[in-house]
Amino acid sequence: MRRAIYPGSFDPVTRGHLDVVQRAARIFDEVIVAVAFNEQKAGFFSAPERESFLQDAVQGIENVRVTRFDGLLVEFARAQGCHAVIRGLRAVSDFEFEFQMALMNRKLDSRIETIFVMPREDYVYLSSRIVREIARHGGNVDAFVPACVAQALQRKFSA
Amino acid sequence: MRRAIYPGSFDPVTRGHLDVVQRAARIFDEVIVAVAFNEQKAGFFSAPERESFLQDAVQGIENVRVTRFDGLLVEFARAQGCHAVIRGLRAVSDFEFEFQMALMNRKLDSRIETIFVMPREDYVYLSSRIVREIARHGGNVDAFVPACVAQALQRKFSA
Amino acid sequence: MRRAIYPGSFDPVTRGHLDVVQRAARIFDEVIVAVAFNEQKAGFFSAPERESFLQDAVQGIENVRVTRFDGLLVEFARAQGCHAVIRGLRAVSDFEFEFQMALMNRKLDSRIETIFVMPREDYVYLSSRIVREIARHGGNVDAFVPACVAQALQRKFSA
Amino acid sequence: MRRAIYPGSFDPVTRGHLDVVQRAARIFDEVIVAVAFNEQKAGFFSAPERESFLQDAVQGIENVRVTRFDGLLVEFARAQGCHAVIRGLRAVSDFEFEFQMALMNRKLDSRIETIFVMPREDYVYLSSRIVREIARHGGNVDAFVPACVAQALQRKFSA
Amino acid sequence: MRRAIYPGSFDPVTRGHLDVVQRAARIFDEVIVAVAFNEQKAGFFSAPERESFLQDAVQGIENVRVTRFDGLLVEFARAQGCHAVIRGLRAVSDFEFEFQMALMNRKLDSRIETIFVMPREDYVYLSSRIVREIARHGGNVDAFVPACVAQALQRKFSA
Amino acid sequence: MRRAIYPGSFDPVTRGHLDVVQRAARIFDEVIVAVAFNEQKAGFFSAPERESFLQDAVQGIENVRVTRFDGLLVEFARAQGCHAVIRGLRAVSDFEFEFQMALMNRKLDSRIETIFVMPREDYVYLSSRIVREIARHGGNVDAFVPACVAQALQRKFSA
Repeated sequence: MRRAIYPGSFDPVTRGHLDVVQRAARIFDEVIVAVAFNEQKAGFFSAPERESFLQDAVQGIENVRVTRFDGLLVEFARAQGCHAVIRGLRAVSDFEFEFQMALMNRKLDSRIETIFVMPREDYVYLSSRIVREIARHGGNVDAFVPACVAQALQRKFSA
Repeated sequence: MRRAIYPGSFDPVTRGHLDVVQRAARIFDEVIVAVAFNEQKAGFFSAPERESFLQDAVQGIENVRVTRFDGLLVEFARAQGCHAVIRGLRAVSDFEFEFQMALMNRKLDSRIETIFVMPREDYVYLSSRIVREIARHGGNVDAFVPACVAQALQRKFSA
Repeated sequence: MRRAIYPGSFDPVTRGHLDVVQRAARIFDEVIVAVAFNEQKAGFFSAPERESFLQDAVQGIENVRVTRFDGLLVEFARAQGCHAVIRGLRAVSDFEFEFQMALMNRKLDSRIETIFVMPREDYVYLSSRIVREIARHGGNVDAFVPACVAQALQRKFSA
Repeated sequence: MRRAIYPGSFDPVTRGHLDVVQRAARIFDEVIVAVAFNEQKAGFFSAPERESFLQDAVQGIENVRVTRFDGLLVEFARAQGCHAVIRGLRAVSDFEFEFQMALMNRKLDSRIETIFVMPREDYVYLSSRIVREIARHGGNVDAFVPACVAQALQRKFSA
Repeated sequence: MRRAIYPGSFDPVTRGHLDVVQRAARIFDEVIVAVAFNEQKAGFFSAPERESFLQDAVQGIENVRVTRFDGLLVEFARAQGCHAVIRGLRAVSDFEFEFQMALMNRKLDSRIETIFVMPREDYVYLSSRIVREIARHGGNVDAFVPACVAQALQRKFSA
Repeated sequence: MRRAIYPGSFDPVTRGHLDVVQRAARIFDEVIVAVAFNEQKAGFFSAPERESFLQDAVQGIENVRVTRFDGLLVEFARAQGCHAVIRGLRAVSDFEFEFQMALMNRKLDSRIETIFVMPREDYVYLSSRIVREIARHGGNVDAFVPACVAQALQRKFSA
């Protein structure tokens, strides 16, 4: 069975991330979406919140599972029986950073292969940071994130 | 009347920003230079300081007006009767970020068009951050910013 | 009156080019679309063919005029009373080449200002070359070019 | 069964290409390496030569098959029962061109997914063109191409 | 005598930095490696620690000297009798930032020339930040940094 | 003695090239400017013409010598006793191509080091191709090339 991991901070998950998940789910037998968190550095949403948004958003896709991890990606991937890491590429700046990470991960474990896919071109402008920024100013983010995230953002900022 | 908005944090305004203002003022009937600020996040200079430096620096250009705003750019632009947003492009990294912002703004309001202009090539190295850094080390920034800003930087760092 | 020129080889015009024309037509009072040709170097379509496709494609837009020129862009622009040159930017590679050209044109005539706009993000993949390539292989290009161009390409390659 | 196609001109195949083939062969059940040729435009090596170098070079890898095609990649891929296209990415310039091609292919057939992998970082400088150039000047290309290609280049240039 | 300065934060020094030092030492008569620090902003390692790691790592190279500085690079370089600044380039994002800095330094002192060299291609993925991140997660960094740094990182994170 | 080679096609030499020569001449004891030519592929100017323009243009700089070569750069450099290759970097696209070439040259001869310098920022738009294009259209190129080249271009195109 070919199993891949799709790691990220997903703070919060956007429709661009979900587009990547769907593409990965068509290529691999199983896809593990893994929320990277850092005990010492709080995100905007907590790791359990981010994981639960993802759970909600991917529930229609059979071969996708959501989890979270703190630590080295290559070790977590290996422990999960994954030899492929999925990443979305949108822009040149993504490209350079992702390549550095992929090369580093390959150095740390040569059996891990990073696979890049392209989200839909109309999600090219989307990032978690930009979505948080729009929500902070009271803008409507329904087109950019799943409904559960849009509601959570509204609750946070109207508080 | 064709009115454009030139938004930015201008913390502080540099000669590169002013070069963009002058170019915009030749293309549009009116240009509104808008200092973006964030109530919750202090800049290096306060929003009123940044606005006043700009007021001082553009006073010779008739069809330019300075203001400030907190919130979504597209809403502020619409409220000001502007359908064009002006941005300067210096480098590939600018390009990618600016394109993301412009696409996002177009999603939020399809009537808003972002227009890019090129500052003089000898301002390509200029940024507010780099100017603050040089001033912090006691370097001379007269060639990079208007006189009022150079004085304000000197006062801040000699304090 | 603010008049701008949109130069290019348009060999052939794509929906991406037309999207740029429409955006320019909303910013300027008049837009001149100018087919650059080179007497000594034949294009895929002849200059009159390229001009006629453009005529056909822009006929609904009132303030757009189509013409062609051989020679220096800055001189042609000046002769047409244009002080702004419009260019579309899609990608980093565009960006660098366009910036070189814009800087060079500014050296040749400092009154000429180059203005960049962004076509719709779903036209980012479009280029005249790629359209010709698809048509050569019998692919359907209806989504990428105006109807008159699609027909002309089919005629050329089925001959 | 998950089958992928790895298209290219392979004129000639380099160790960088072979590195991509090996990575693809670990991810997919079957990989078809497809030499793109163009009846009207001769390459440096003929299509049968390029195909035969590849045959020779991949013979140790069980799940890899070599073929050639002229025409639209998406149609050939579909006819071969492939829903994934493999491409290697080395540099920013690759990135932009490959993204344009991948987006265009997705427009032509939305079921086709392009997957990017990274060759070994010490093959980042390798290209068929650069190899031909070195061989033309009598340089040793043994480190860059399989033995059969090195010999063929030597024969061509000593003739 | 041709003397060059190689400035950086070196927090901590990596094998990529050392590769640049060695290349610089073959081009210039003397190379001064200068740890840039900032009294008001603590690094991960202190300036004396960073300097001492470098001392340890370059001790085999005769014409290299290590020091540290706070302030404007151009003034420090001049005071040290250096007219060349050495920088390593790995990626496009490096390139843009480094060019901005080099142009700015040239404005501040036109006699200072910035010289770029390329580290080994298998160090392209290396950065001080990425090394700290791996060490924080308990990963092995022996391949990426000199022994003294690997030990210091282990001590810091096991504390 | 530290001797460097500055190779290029110089077809024709521009003020941007000359700026790089001057910078190199301040760093190295001797600089050899080497016109790369290709017996089988004619340039715009012949190799002897290009060499003679350079001779003329560098005659005021004592430690610069002009020559030409056909073949592998690394072999020519070694034969001339050079261990450093000088290249100018202007833009991201330069950067990628130059890095590929530098890495390849390093593979072919590990003792050869490529050194990058930055021309003046107002030469960033200059290239031999763009100069030829302007001259072909009757534009004035005096600001971009040495006088001997401007005259030669005028003679060629008025013929």
